[in-house]
Amino acid sequence: MELHSIIVNATVITVDESNRIIMDGAVAFKNGVITYVGATPEELELYDEVIDGRHRYVLPGLINTHGHVGMSLLRGYADDLPLQTWLKEKIWPWEARFTDEHVRWGTGLSLIEMIRTGTTTFVDMYDHNEAIAGIVAPSGMRAALCCGMIGSGDPGVQDRKLADAVSFAKDWHRQANGRISVMLAPHAPYTCTPHFISQIIDKAAQLQLPVHTHMSETNWEVELNVQQYGCRPVAHLHKLGMFERSALVAHAVHLTEEEIDLLAECNVRVSHNVVSNLKLASGVAPVPQMLARGISVSLGTDSSVSNNNLNLFEELKLAAIVHKGTTYDPLAVPAETALRMATRNGADGVFQSDSIGSIEIGKQADLIMIDAGKANFQPAHNPVSHVVYAANGLDVTDTIVAGKFLMRKGELMTLDEERMIYEANRMVRQLMNEDRPAHSK
Amino acid sequence: MELHSIIVNATVITVDESNRIIMDGAVAFKNGVITYVGATPEELELYDEVIDGRHRYVLPGLINTHGHVGMSLLRGYADDLPLQTWLKEKIWPWEARFTDEHVRWGTGLSLIEMIRTGTTTFVDMYDHNEAIAGIVAPSGMRAALCCGMIGSGDPGVQDRKLADAVSFAKDWHRQANGRISVMLAPHAPYTCTPHFISQIIDKAAQLQLPVHTHMSETNWEVELNVQQYGCRPVAHLHKLGMFERSALVAHAVHLTEEEIDLLAECNVRVSHNVVSNLKLASGVAPVPQMLARGISVSLGTDSSVSNNNLNLFEELKLAAIVHKGTTYDPLAVPAETALRMATRNGADGVFQSDSIGSIEIGKQADLIMIDAGKANFQPAHNPVSHVVYAANGLDVTDTIVAGKFLMRKGELMTLDEERMIYEANRMVRQLMNEDRPAHSK
Repeated sequence: MELHSIIVNATVITVDESNRIIMDGAVAFKNGVITYVGATPEELELYDEVIDGRHRYVLPGLINTHGHVGMSLLRGYADDLPLQTWLKEKIWPWEARFTDEHVRWGTGLSLIEMIRTGTTTFVDMYDHNEAIAGIVAPSGMRAALCCGMIGSGDPGVQDRKLADAVSFAKDWHRQANGRISVMLAPHAPYTCTPHFISQIIDKAAQLQLPVHTHMSETNWEVELNVQQYGCRPVAHLHKLGMFERSALVAHAVHLTEEEIDLLAECNVRVSHNVVSNLKLASGVAPVPQMLARGISVSLGTDSSVSNNNLNLFEELKLAAIVHKGTTYDPLAVPAETALRMATRNGADGVFQSDSIGSIEIGKQADLIMIDAGKANFQPAHNPVSHVVYAANGLDVTDTIVAGKFLMRKGELMTLDEERMIYEANRMVRQLMNEDRPAHSK
Repeated sequence: MELHSIIVNATVITVDESNRIIMDGAVAFKNGVITYVGATPEELELYDEVIDGRHRYVLPGLINTHGHVGMSLLRGYADDLPLQTWLKEKIWPWEARFTDEHVRWGTGLSLIEMIRTGTTTFVDMYDHNEAIAGIVAPSGMRAALCCGMIGSGDPGVQDRKLADAVSFAKDWHRQANGRISVMLAPHAPYTCTPHFISQIIDKAAQLQLPVHTHMSETNWEVELNVQQYGCRPVAHLHKLGMFERSALVAHAVHLTEEEIDLLAECNVRVSHNVVSNLKLASGVAPVPQMLARGISVSLGTDSSVSNNNLNLFEELKLAAIVHKGTTYDPLAVPAETALRMATRNGADGVFQSDSIGSIEIGKQADLIMIDAGKANFQPAHNPVSHVVYAANGLDVTDTIVAGKFLMRKGELMTLDEERMIYEANRMVRQLMNEDRPAHSK
């Protein structure tokens, strides 16, 4: 039986249906679930633990709907290159040498960063997923994990990859008290044969799992798709049946109006990775158009190799300002909309909007607290504006998932930060001191 | 006689001519001036104070070349509106009611934010400049201050404003041990008559002061300039003689190729305000083209009302990634270039490149230290990449100007943060409880 806890005297930004903000508010939770949201009660005897929320904003934890946590060992190893050169010459040769051990400690770095900057749930597509799940479980974070399946050659290899992904799903879906879920993920239309994608989709239908993929990130891949298959990626994936499943696609930068209509019609969830798309020179996704059609667009950091951090507050601010600047429309993505993208829409993106994404009674107690007593939050004109435009991920003081503190007053509670940093650097030294892979000089 | 201090065992990112990075490096300073840059010396007896730089990056302090520090009282008061509506209906009516007292405490908030996020020098254009200088002096920051002169009507008012600006320059230029300098600033071509701009330029020539203005921030003002004066703002200011002076222009978003050529030819310095330009839907400045012509482009936050913070690390990252994304060129602004924009080019922007902007013997000891022991700086592949793409202003631990610590291990040394926050909120409550100004409902 857990404690019944209550945060009191806080500014509670609920991100509920009506975007309710409660001044001098309170949020209570027990057994991982929110039991009360409202004004700070006069009687507090009911509660086992009273948490001081003065000068604090309390928000739903942020949800990062696309990334590759295992890649953090390569942060800063290569920048300022075109996507395909960067992937093929710099990143993939090193990744091919990663073992579970490398991925474990790279993941450790990533989880620390996300907890420190207020992310409570993330979607990940990578390899060595047993190693990832093995550290996510004790970290206390919530995650939707996918084995990223690349398969354009040997069908035997494809069969093995799919079998591994299915085995991972059977082992980990709804594990860690339901904090870990699993999706099936063909890496991208340009790295998988249509047959392989179909096989994955069939398996997802059979296991009732959502699907996740990279889609239309660059012009290059859109044109390649047209050359190879006579249609653009959206039509291609639609034909293969992907959008009949619960589907989350990452990037969606290069879309026609018709493609946006089709994604809306099929209720496809989109993860907008604005920092990564800018840094890799992929372009700017048509987010205002997608939102106008009712598509649920959430936010993703992508990996710390194409970003180069996992601080979702950057995506939150950029989602609000970049589209204003590139469309000359100061109302393109208002602050409230950006905050919904980082929270409620993220919950849609992991198909868990019944249980996370806002502060409401009955939902999971996935909460963050921000130190709004600092200079950048003064004066207190508008809390949502301050969270979106003035805050910084490092203003987060407390990160709570299912009622458990993963960070409390700036101190990590579940992960040994010093050890993670030590091991990550040890792994890199070991890797880089071996012979360099053939493609990289 | 001050202490001779040395920071040892640090990663020193000099941003000198050759972009030298010194691993296990040291920087010494005495009487405000850098006396040594190089490997950590074996003999340290020479020094009065040895500062531990392990797990620290040491960089030149960042230089913010455009802002309005007194406006922080209005942070978050109005967002998501077009520039002219926002200015005329929301901001100007309140600003008209500001007294020295309002501006003093708004400035206090701004200085705290800048010191906390590693800015050591800033350019400011505002009103009530005596109040601003009165707090900059004891804060220890370096600043180039300008009275922002608006004058499109009564010539008597213009005469008075210019006389006040000249009086301020006489009182404050090269004061506070040379930390405060003064520029003369017509607010913008669309808010000043050509005659008033000419008068200001003449006075700047007479007093040997640089000039600063807003230029070509929005399409609206460019078109207005063409309607009113038959030419675009660059030609207009050129005709008025502004570019014969040492000139720094802010924004420069809407420029033709010919205008870029002329700015390059006249050696005009440009302050790129990428966050503000995006948030106000003004557009994206042609920065790669300006840099290619050799224009010294530096970075500015603009005010915390159009940003909404003064954390120049955001501009640093966005200057590196936004132009890649909007031009599809992954080499548009490499990380090293962005870092030069935030430091050396900033020194050019305040016409002080002989004394600040890089870590070199003989320059002022304007330094910042970053905690590179944190997860987001791992692994240690490339310090410049990490500073530009992975860092966050709140990773700054120490801010030093002219050899004096303004922040030491996260603690502010010159300003009373609690009081600044208290007074700023008191000022706002007082202001907003009075009758609201006519334009604002």
